[in-house]
Amino acid sequence: MKLIVIGGVAGGTSAAAKAKRVNPDLEITLFERSNQVSFAPCGLPYVIGGEISNFHKLIARTPQDFAQTGIEALTQHEVLSVDYPNRVLEVRNHREGQTFKASFDKLLIATGASALRPRIPGVDLENIFTLRNIADGEAIQKAILEAYNRSSTPKAVIVGGGYIGLEMAEAFQKRGLQVTVIEQLPRLLGNVDPDTAALTLTEVKRHGVEVLVSEQVKGFSGNGRVQKVLTSQGELEADLVLLAAGVRPNSSLAASFGVNLTPFGSVEVNQQLETNLPGVYAAGDVTEVHHLVSGRHAYIPLGNTANHQGRVAGTNIGGGHSSFPGVVGTAISKVFDVAVGLTGLSELDAFQLGLEAKAISINTSDHASYFPDHRPIMVRLVFETKTARLLGAQIVGHGDAVKRIDVVASLLHRAGTLEDLANLNLAYAPPFSSVWDPLQIAANAALR
Amino acid sequence: MKLIVIGGVAGGTSAAAKAKRVNPDLEITLFERSNQVSFAPCGLPYVIGGEISNFHKLIARTPQDFAQTGIEALTQHEVLSVDYPNRVLEVRNHREGQTFKASFDKLLIATGASALRPRIPGVDLENIFTLRNIADGEAIQKAILEAYNRSSTPKAVIVGGGYIGLEMAEAFQKRGLQVTVIEQLPRLLGNVDPDTAALTLTEVKRHGVEVLVSEQVKGFSGNGRVQKVLTSQGELEADLVLLAAGVRPNSSLAASFGVNLTPFGSVEVNQQLETNLPGVYAAGDVTEVHHLVSGRHAYIPLGNTANHQGRVAGTNIGGGHSSFPGVVGTAISKVFDVAVGLTGLSELDAFQLGLEAKAISINTSDHASYFPDHRPIMVRLVFETKTARLLGAQIVGHGDAVKRIDVVASLLHRAGTLEDLANLNLAYAPPFSSVWDPLQIAANAALR
Repeated sequence: MKLIVIGGVAGGTSAAAKAKRVNPDLEITLFERSNQVSFAPCGLPYVIGGEISNFHKLIARTPQDFAQTGIEALTQHEVLSVDYPNRVLEVRNHREGQTFKASFDKLLIATGASALRPRIPGVDLENIFTLRNIADGEAIQKAILEAYNRSSTPKAVIVGGGYIGLEMAEAFQKRGLQVTVIEQLPRLLGNVDPDTAALTLTEVKRHGVEVLVSEQVKGFSGNGRVQKVLTSQGELEADLVLLAAGVRPNSSLAASFGVNLTPFGSVEVNQQLETNLPGVYAAGDVTEVHHLVSGRHAYIPLGNTANHQGRVAGTNIGGGHSSFPGVVGTAISKVFDVAVGLTGLSELDAFQLGLEAKAISINTSDHASYFPDHRPIMVRLVFETKTARLLGAQIVGHGDAVKRIDVVASLLHRAGTLEDLANLNLAYAPPFSSVWDPLQIAANAALR
Repeated sequence: MKLIVIGGVAGGTSAAAKAKRVNPDLEITLFERSNQVSFAPCGLPYVIGGEISNFHKLIARTPQDFAQTGIEALTQHEVLSVDYPNRVLEVRNHREGQTFKASFDKLLIATGASALRPRIPGVDLENIFTLRNIADGEAIQKAILEAYNRSSTPKAVIVGGGYIGLEMAEAFQKRGLQVTVIEQLPRLLGNVDPDTAALTLTEVKRHGVEVLVSEQVKGFSGNGRVQKVLTSQGELEADLVLLAAGVRPNSSLAASFGVNLTPFGSVEVNQQLETNLPGVYAAGDVTEVHHLVSGRHAYIPLGNTANHQGRVAGTNIGGGHSSFPGVVGTAISKVFDVAVGLTGLSELDAFQLGLEAKAISINTSDHASYFPDHRPIMVRLVFETKTARLLGAQIVGHGDAVKRIDVVASLLHRAGTLEDLANLNLAYAPPFSSVWDPLQIAANAALR
């Protein structure tokens, strides 16, 4: 039995490893288009910012490591086409410049996602980057070095004020660049409510980053290299530009041989991560997910989901039984000195889904207010007005204190209510929490 | 309608405040035996250790604050007896040396708990302390000062290796005392499993605290003031001794007028926190709790539970409707530089309950292992062998990272399984977690 895995980052490698553990007789080959397998894309901004010393630290397993577990992992190998009826595919070895065919019994599509690169004038000028892999990161590091040869305070413009945009704003700021973030929405972090976004904005501005909201990028100009960003409101100087305005699934290969896509363009899978074509599975950023709170398809490409899906797909491919029930939309991000966490639906999401919902935000301290290390924390809960069912939460605070978002996430998996949250027996001691956990202060306030 | 509250710490004050909010017409008088109301006992060790500058910081509300909300709070007032049929009680005003009667319609018993003071020879010598209130804390501070007049490294002996014993070991060590902890069980922290206790022991010893386990204190000797602790194994010098070998509910007043007690000696209450006597409620350390995992009565006196119960009792007394479903046994404590969290049952608890249970412990890092601030974390999960139902968890790690114990607590409230935990959509970013949360690494390991 032969498994071919297309794509060697989170979904692909975790599926391959799991499938091999479940069925050691499985013959597994993994083809990866880039020159790295099994690295942690989420760590890229921190290498650029200098918290992590080099990109090598992000590599979890090399092709040699995979070889030792009996998995053949080939980099710079691009799958060009798949002949599904005959269970054979065509691969281009870019290193050797050869094309060859490989047969399979089962196939895993883990082709990931690509950063959106809007088709606007000047977008192909030099020093306009996206950030998806180590090569992208290295190119950005090189551009920063070169920019310092031309200017003592080079200017970076980031297009998009989501998580990656803000993580990169911090990275650039740590490298001494003058940073501007341009966001077309009226606020940062499109998936949170305005007051969460406002706290985030305050933190970003406090660190000297300029933020332009409700402003659209129309194009770029420069002499070979980008020098200006043209927006709906005017123009900005730029030594380098990062495009961080979202991603889209790399699903065209899958579509080309008959795999069904969702309206998002992502690969449609069932709970076993199998596509409409028997024996063809998909995992990671190329797939849809089922959103357990909205009850709808969603496209939320994240590293932990990709790993989880890979594990489930690998189990099933290996002959085991596992399913991926879906997500509740949980995420966390460090934005300079604060952390922003969210789960479930924002009040705006709920409104768009036609739910009768309310939200409450409370400000308190993350530890006992008489304990010296306590810091401010904001908890926002979104809930259904009539049933008091929890729909989501957003937290802005410091460090691991924001990981308490997971408690709400856990309730969302089971349609828990405000009362369920208020009644939880959570851990209390002055160095870790107020006597009522901030989550419960919010739940009690909402219940009144 | 008149409410009398007996006891003014967590359960009593939160009940009084909530009852008044629910029914502003309620006439409320609170009698407190000591000279402080509404303080945070959990903060006492940190004042003694110096992290918190003075005991005043622990006081949340003064009698004047209560007066402003229309609640009469009287300190140094001890309720001597209750004539339930006639709804009248007798109070001793220790300040003025007077005894008077007061009538009530509803009564809340929030008399708390007292530290156990074993009836062994010499236990009444000077400098043998318990720690329950600010006066106790002040006496200990004074004793430390005086001990330094006699010795450059005074010796403190702590009887009991539970949370309070270890918090006070740290406090004494921070004050420069030479500290010995004596525990009669074979390990520290009787409510966790041996490997959790072993990690805790390592941390305590690393800070120069001597720990004697499987050793019983038989008595004390000294000339007026304690000078020696006599144990089953020998004797130790001591300038001061802290008794931290557990607490017992102050339930004798309640029992004296017909309130039912549990086998623990705690006050029996229903989910509305009402006792067997209509109109008589109880909250806080004097009460039993229902343990949602074992399905049994338990006596787990903790400040957050007391506050929660007070709120529920106050709501019902005020004419609202609220219930307290019970606890899952969640707790957290800082032990020098580590944090120890637990929830649910230990493997030993499960065994004693006759459950067929297993446990697994994993060691990993609390943040992405390539992120510079990651620190070790141990997660232990206890689960039912046949059903994979989660029974409990223990975590040893650093700071707020250990608060993730609450995610397991939340699952325990609903009889969640290992699979439920493995399938949770938890928040991931490199500065906050590994891509699989440590809890899920443990759940996946247990599922194998």
